[in-house]
Amino acid sequence: MAELQRLAIAPTQLHQEQICLTAEQQHYLSRVLRLRSGDRFIAMNGQGQWWLAELLASPDQSLEAQIIQTLTVDTELPIAITLVVALPKGSGFDEVVRQATELGTSCIAPVISDRTLLHPSPQKLERWRRIAQEAAEQSERQVVPTILEPVPLAPQLQQLLATTPGTPKVVGYLCVTRYDAPHLLNCLQRDLGFGNQQPSLSALSSMVIVTGPEGGWTEAEVEQAIALGYQPVSLGQRILKAVTAPLVALSLVAAVAEATPSPISTTLPG
Amino acid sequence: MAELQRLAIAPTQLHQEQICLTAEQQHYLSRVLRLRSGDRFIAMNGQGQWWLAELLASPDQSLEAQIIQTLTVDTELPIAITLVVALPKGSGFDEVVRQATELGTSCIAPVISDRTLLHPSPQKLERWRRIAQEAAEQSERQVVPTILEPVPLAPQLQQLLATTPGTPKVVGYLCVTRYDAPHLLNCLQRDLGFGNQQPSLSALSSMVIVTGPEGGWTEAEVEQAIALGYQPVSLGQRILKAVTAPLVALSLVAAVAEATPSPISTTLPG
Repeated sequence: MAELQRLAIAPTQLHQEQICLTAEQQHYLSRVLRLRSGDRFIAMNGQGQWWLAELLASPDQSLEAQIIQTLTVDTELPIAITLVVALPKGSGFDEVVRQATELGTSCIAPVISDRTLLHPSPQKLERWRRIAQEAAEQSERQVVPTILEPVPLAPQLQQLLATTPGTPKVVGYLCVTRYDAPHLLNCLQRDLGFGNQQPSLSALSSMVIVTGPEGGWTEAEVEQAIALGYQPVSLGQRILKAVTAPLVALSLVAAVAEATPSPISTTLPG
Repeated sequence: MAELQRLAIAPTQLHQEQICLTAEQQHYLSRVLRLRSGDRFIAMNGQGQWWLAELLASPDQSLEAQIIQTLTVDTELPIAITLVVALPKGSGFDEVVRQATELGTSCIAPVISDRTLLHPSPQKLERWRRIAQEAAEQSERQVVPTILEPVPLAPQLQQLLATTPGTPKVVGYLCVTRYDAPHLLNCLQRDLGFGNQQPSLSALSSMVIVTGPEGGWTEAEVEQAIALGYQPVSLGQRILKAVTAPLVALSLVAAVAEATPSPISTTLPG
């Protein structure tokens, strides 16, 4: 399947076994990719479902597509990760969205912290959502991450960690520098049961990872996050740029979740 | 010390306790940073030594600096990492050099693989070396990574894994996609003794990590690398871009080396 082109479609484009292609998609498939009637591609609805589809010429010369087969693929992490990032300056967040999508995050929440310099325009949000969709296609994911609207840090941290009784526990990590914090890998090892036959949190369903702005968090922000239940963690001895830290954190989470024959993957929907 | 400016100096600029600043450095310190006689900064020679230095006005109005104190800092990994990267297209390698430096790599070796599109000009090498130096300063490293000249893949792989009898073992990992390979984190756990009381390779001194070009390695390249002794490894279920894969691999190596109270850090110079 690797060589077939992937195309994201909206759920509303699917009627029984037929896919109604938009004018833009028809142009892309026929003019850019030079596909013709009878050629196949992969349709993905951004919610974890993929289909093998075949192009059909309709009588009015437009292109439609028919579903040939439902594909069983799973490139998603066995745990839902929400990445909270204090917005970096310039266009640095574009690259964070792209790479965080590649690394398997489920939700990206840009936040305004005390030292955030950028207050983005509404157009930015649309741009980030487009980047996430493209990156999901390229990295062969089934799920396009949700990008939340940028909001102030504290209420977002509070809401993301809030669970109602009876629902699985959510664990939150706050990445800090210049504090004496345990390494994120050690915390993941403890919380995800890595290298441990009896993981303590087999009911863990999701995780929130928070990375800071240029210049780091203010002391008040760190104290507030700790009070809300976030575990301060280190990403190592060196000072990372604001745009690098999220990728390092996500690389570790994805690797721990995927590298280990973890009980999580058997208790949660994949 | 965090607030002091860091400046990389050449070993030849140091004469006893005096630092002879270049015209460019004098301009930077006095005009850009607005430092004056009596102000302090951190001088680093790119080979692991840092000094606290103080600016002095010389009689001819030029600036010199005097070493006040030798600093003891260690932000280096306890193991030397060489990153071999098939050159990505465009200017993507600039960002790889910057982020790989942040993540603690000792040596970066760009290589020409079968699917490499870019054949860089000699000016590129100078540019990458400048980026590495800047990134080392920003991430507060003591060592500026060596950037090797771009050469073909196979001879470079052979040379990097070659050891003479009696010298510590070098381990090499080849990152692959679409192959049934163990996860890099599992291999590091095995080879670095992560979560293991009796690591098998306590004499391990260095490691070579190899990541591929857009489109991946050819089958012949993978076979050749395996024949040379490289372990094929996976970086997870999703397809990563050529510029993302090195960062994911280095994030894992740095975390495993730093997060664990590893015997490596006690047997090797830090």
